[in-house]
Amino acid sequence: MRETELIKSIQKIARTIPRNERLLEGIGDDCCIVRPNADEDLVFTTDFVIENRHFTLATHSPADIGYKALARSLSDLAAMGAEPVFCLVSLALPEGLASRWVASFYRGLGTLARRFRISLAGGDLAKAERVTADVMCCGQVPSGKALRRSTARPGDLIYVTGDLGGSALGLRHKRGAAWLRHKRPEPRVDAGILLRSIASAAMDLSDGISLDLLRLSTASQVRAVIDAPLPLARGATEEDGLHGGEDYELLFTARPDIEVPAMLGDVHIARIGLIERGKPAVSYKGRQLPPQGFDHFL
Amino acid sequence: MRETELIKSIQKIARTIPRNERLLEGIGDDCCIVRPNADEDLVFTTDFVIENRHFTLATHSPADIGYKALARSLSDLAAMGAEPVFCLVSLALPEGLASRWVASFYRGLGTLARRFRISLAGGDLAKAERVTADVMCCGQVPSGKALRRSTARPGDLIYVTGDLGGSALGLRHKRGAAWLRHKRPEPRVDAGILLRSIASAAMDLSDGISLDLLRLSTASQVRAVIDAPLPLARGATEEDGLHGGEDYELLFTARPDIEVPAMLGDVHIARIGLIERGKPAVSYKGRQLPPQGFDHFL
Repeated sequence: MRETELIKSIQKIARTIPRNERLLEGIGDDCCIVRPNADEDLVFTTDFVIENRHFTLATHSPADIGYKALARSLSDLAAMGAEPVFCLVSLALPEGLASRWVASFYRGLGTLARRFRISLAGGDLAKAERVTADVMCCGQVPSGKALRRSTARPGDLIYVTGDLGGSALGLRHKRGAAWLRHKRPEPRVDAGILLRSIASAAMDLSDGISLDLLRLSTASQVRAVIDAPLPLARGATEEDGLHGGEDYELLFTARPDIEVPAMLGDVHIARIGLIERGKPAVSYKGRQLPPQGFDHFL
Repeated sequence: MRETELIKSIQKIARTIPRNERLLEGIGDDCCIVRPNADEDLVFTTDFVIENRHFTLATHSPADIGYKALARSLSDLAAMGAEPVFCLVSLALPEGLASRWVASFYRGLGTLARRFRISLAGGDLAKAERVTADVMCCGQVPSGKALRRSTARPGDLIYVTGDLGGSALGLRHKRGAAWLRHKRPEPRVDAGILLRSIASAAMDLSDGISLDLLRLSTASQVRAVIDAPLPLARGATEEDGLHGGEDYELLFTARPDIEVPAMLGDVHIARIGLIERGKPAVSYKGRQLPPQGFDHFL
């Protein structure tokens, strides 16, 4: 199949996603064109999904891979409290994969894109030895309102959305709801938008709370104390909850005088700890918690 | 080396590049944050460079690869007449490559980034079997002024910047100026900005003019006639000039009453043909030119 034909089939899928009004020009030129709103900031993130690192062709359908590639980046938008605008999808794949594989990848991605109204605005295609996707997402927030991980202060309380460890459990057992959750994580976009007026700091949980909370505490130059039970996914162990990656829940802090609701949209919220003055570290059950989450280069 | 350490060394290089005033927050959070200008559009592009497809570790230094990864995307900004704002760099690499390799990659990229004042605002790092970089670039243009490939009209004249075939020649002989040009192509950013008030349509020459001019003619629904000698790089053959990829010159059209200067900044301009009414095709020496440029999926 020629590149031109492939691009046409991708354009067809892109047209099934409602076009964001900011996007003036999508797939087809050297760049896509966006007309930003004067009173909004734009946020940008990019994430790889790579064969044999983030998935295998034996366990993940092309639609699962397309879904997950977009979900990872959408989760970063959620962490900033941003509303999705558009994405660019770079896909490299081995010669042997048929055009049906590619179409199925984009359909999986399109399913999620339609739900969150994020336009597919462009990307790149190339051959490679292993399937490699890199998805860049752009989101918008009212000027100055983007949530950050560096703004937690002593006295703030620590919260998480949803439950933890489900993805690690799913990866281990490869069945049931946990496996589905691992393959099709739910980016907390709507919760992120609601958190703009609640959270003092936020980030997403992609590499396990032991590592990610240490990152938040380092960025904010504060100490984090987990003093309440973690909300574990059904069947997940304490280890799964502390160190398991890819839950894509939101980790956030709020000033102690802020009333944090028990639910944000359809996701429940749990208070798990508090922020203290001190050197960046995470304390759990009275001891310093070593970061054992997923480090791409350990 | 831990991911955290790697990110620190990349942040250090990012700080050697002047920060674009639009960029509020760079590397370090879930997303970078950009505050756009009310009277400007933003354009976005992304391009892969992949080991054994776009380079080999035997022939390209890590600094060459970093340079080229950014140059490819900058060339797309040039094609839109855009001024560079920021880039996101996704880099996947095998375990065996040392931190020195990574630092050298980012230094090569940084050299070009400083010249064109494009901030390194974030990205992703992952392990992979082959070195894979995906660089997303954002540029800005005054509202409504982005150059497109779909706006050429019958009667327009066709031009190219610089000379053609040098990159193909360099790839074949692997020595001299042509080889340097292949490894370190010069994105025509300044020429692109000047073309905003001159060109009726534009794109960059990444896959060979036989294929790229057909793309412009298809996007604009017109016929393109090459009726003048192509400006060939010294030593390049007609084949190199017609079908050789990766020259990263600009291909553009202008209304016949527009005076196109012989030079745009330091790059010379050659008129090579004209646009006619008709079915999308490229005519060369009185015959229809079959597209033989680089198709990633042929």
